[in-house]
Amino acid sequence: MKLSTESYKGVRDFYPEDAAVQDYIFSIWQEACKRFGYERYDASVLEPADLYRAKSGEEIVNEQTYTFRDRGDREVTLRPEMTPTVARMVAQRRRELAFPLRWYSIPNLFRYEQPQRGRLREHWQLNADIFGIANLEAEIEAIALSSYIMHAFGAKDDAFSIRINSRKLTDWVMKEYLALDDAAAAKLSKLVDRKEKMPAEDFEKQVGAIITNKTTGSFFDLLSSKNIDDFEKALGAHAASAHGIAEIKETLARLAKLGIKNAVFSPTLMRGFDYYTGIIFEVFDTDPRNRRSLFGGGRYDDLLGLFSASATDKVPAVGFGMGDVTIRDFLETRGLLPKPQSPIDLYLCVFEEAQFSFAEHLASTLRAGGVSVAIDFTARKIGDQIKVADKKHIRHVVCIGDAEVTSGSFKVKDITTGIERQVTEANLAEVLIAARKAQ
Amino acid sequence: MKLSTESYKGVRDFYPEDAAVQDYIFSIWQEACKRFGYERYDASVLEPADLYRAKSGEEIVNEQTYTFRDRGDREVTLRPEMTPTVARMVAQRRRELAFPLRWYSIPNLFRYEQPQRGRLREHWQLNADIFGIANLEAEIEAIALSSYIMHAFGAKDDAFSIRINSRKLTDWVMKEYLALDDAAAAKLSKLVDRKEKMPAEDFEKQVGAIITNKTTGSFFDLLSSKNIDDFEKALGAHAASAHGIAEIKETLARLAKLGIKNAVFSPTLMRGFDYYTGIIFEVFDTDPRNRRSLFGGGRYDDLLGLFSASATDKVPAVGFGMGDVTIRDFLETRGLLPKPQSPIDLYLCVFEEAQFSFAEHLASTLRAGGVSVAIDFTARKIGDQIKVADKKHIRHVVCIGDAEVTSGSFKVKDITTGIERQVTEANLAEVLIAARKAQ
Repeated sequence: MKLSTESYKGVRDFYPEDAAVQDYIFSIWQEACKRFGYERYDASVLEPADLYRAKSGEEIVNEQTYTFRDRGDREVTLRPEMTPTVARMVAQRRRELAFPLRWYSIPNLFRYEQPQRGRLREHWQLNADIFGIANLEAEIEAIALSSYIMHAFGAKDDAFSIRINSRKLTDWVMKEYLALDDAAAAKLSKLVDRKEKMPAEDFEKQVGAIITNKTTGSFFDLLSSKNIDDFEKALGAHAASAHGIAEIKETLARLAKLGIKNAVFSPTLMRGFDYYTGIIFEVFDTDPRNRRSLFGGGRYDDLLGLFSASATDKVPAVGFGMGDVTIRDFLETRGLLPKPQSPIDLYLCVFEEAQFSFAEHLASTLRAGGVSVAIDFTARKIGDQIKVADKKHIRHVVCIGDAEVTSGSFKVKDITTGIERQVTEANLAEVLIAARKAQ
Repeated sequence: MKLSTESYKGVRDFYPEDAAVQDYIFSIWQEACKRFGYERYDASVLEPADLYRAKSGEEIVNEQTYTFRDRGDREVTLRPEMTPTVARMVAQRRRELAFPLRWYSIPNLFRYEQPQRGRLREHWQLNADIFGIANLEAEIEAIALSSYIMHAFGAKDDAFSIRINSRKLTDWVMKEYLALDDAAAAKLSKLVDRKEKMPAEDFEKQVGAIITNKTTGSFFDLLSSKNIDDFEKALGAHAASAHGIAEIKETLARLAKLGIKNAVFSPTLMRGFDYYTGIIFEVFDTDPRNRRSLFGGGRYDDLLGLFSASATDKVPAVGFGMGDVTIRDFLETRGLLPKPQSPIDLYLCVFEEAQFSFAEHLASTLRAGGVSVAIDFTARKIGDQIKVADKKHIRHVVCIGDAEVTSGSFKVKDITTGIERQVTEANLAEVLIAARKAQ
């Protein structure tokens, strides 16, 4: 029977050229998190299904996640997001951990979606969270780290904007100002979140169907406010009793002071997860042809309380998640992905089998000297061996024949420029390491 | 309802101190693979169940793996090993890829085991494979890389031995020399694999029950051979028709020439997977109290043929896998794990909220200068803040109060030695980076 070479539907194989892009993205994430004092944590992709039921509800767990029963009749889910896992871990050792915690991870996440173009069932995501800081410094740091990561990827300030809102304000608008019940508030919130993706008339009509107890005009004024001062003006006398306005102002002022000038108040920013309790933010591509959301996060002070019988066991938390598929697409569209370049310094081409042992010794010496070396053991035509190095984006080749074995002197060829230079064995490692550092 | 903080049964949570050990192990693996010219690849943990049925059989897939049906009625398995995946990927692009390939990955693998002490359902494993090299250079490189990794972990030659055998030889012994049928050969092979774990009498009795067509004495002589020459002698006149002996000799000789002196022929080495076709090897701990197998691999030239209708589409392959649980245990037992040390250079303790903004600016400047900095935003007692740095294994602290804000001069304290030095803001980054490099 002939076996299929296809991967499972909706997931990706990472051939080396794709793994290299992933490595690049992950290394930027890791380096940025380290710079901000974050420690890495990790967990299994398998979690008890109950972890998601509490907050997401039976329907989402059954229909949008991979959930199955193991042979011990335990219901297990392939994690669809990392926040419940990190909350579970922090709650478990709440009494031993040294707060504040700054934790990051790059988990793979699964969602059961009907396979269709661009909809993947598995993706990787940077998750960075701060636990134990109740004041706005946590939000400011999370947003500053987000901005730092975008800059580390080479994005300029005008390539992205950071939209900010507060769950306190949106809740106040929905429940106090518009006096909606929970179901209507949830419905309106979802609608506002999709505002930019639908025609204005449709939006207004659908909003009108939800807000039945007052005219919708003043609500549309709120949503079209250009900044937080406009928003306050649109509220008029109600502004004094609104929640969350002061923290939005403070956040924007403090970010500006840190040199982050592309943060803006956005009254339409909602964020899907219902566990947020304070400032929420989302980073958007500013490309007028594609104002897509890139990633986001916010404060979720109540989530850890789910793991405790005591209401006083809350742990303040702020975090964000940034997916690999979206960011890769952004970097590709913006021309920000670096050129493919192998981490391997040298490809040793060998004329005949008789020289294999010599090549192995040379490679062994070079490796001990810090050089990354691959050897071509096929004994094919030298031209074909050099083509392999080129295809793998390895910059330097050395060909080993009888002359090299006898003389211990080698011609190092840079296949990107065609330039060759004669180097003795004693200098070979040094020359190659210098070339790597000069790149 | 109070949610459980327990992880799913049989998998691990990685708190930062455990993630740091994992990072250390992975970084040694990655650096070694890069040094030998290996490129990283990756794939999803989800694979079509059929991928394992072909070689492992229905029973193993159903009883020892996580296999379930998705809502599209596809049978999907959480990969129990990486070799079928890499074989599938190479087979899929066989005509486009530039051979020889050197590929590595560090996948997580799942096995359904009844949970019990020390038996995990998920572990991570380095997989390193070479495709497209039919000669012994591939085996020699795989074993040399294995040895390089052990040295990179700080293991001396006398801490481990590399046992070598050939599937050609074991097959010849079973099928030609002992004239066993496939079932009896498989049974005997499993028994020999467990030889060191059972009393000699039990072993001999059970072997006697399988080898019924001749006396078992000469077989026991073969198994107790100290080296390949002894083995040949024990075979007597049969040695001339045996398979695999020359390649074992050649492999050992070439390894010795490369300075690898702890490789030995082992007539009892079998390796579980049935896809091996040539040299097999396994690295053992030499600790007399625990001669455990650490990892191993071998040649599997026929596996890629499964994906093709044509028998000529074989791709020669050699690879090995090295699990994180076993190697971590070896490093712990041997005292080879490095001391916990945070990658974060500086912990900024802050006396009062009024100095938070100053601390953020200082951190921002230091980060731009390449320093990793975490800030304590709790405004707790300074002593408690320093304790947090100590618990996180961060070596240096600076405390920010009004004096520091005014003077721009800071006392950098090394909390491992207690030594303090006064440093100006302009020199702070330099001092901290120099301290990191001096470690």
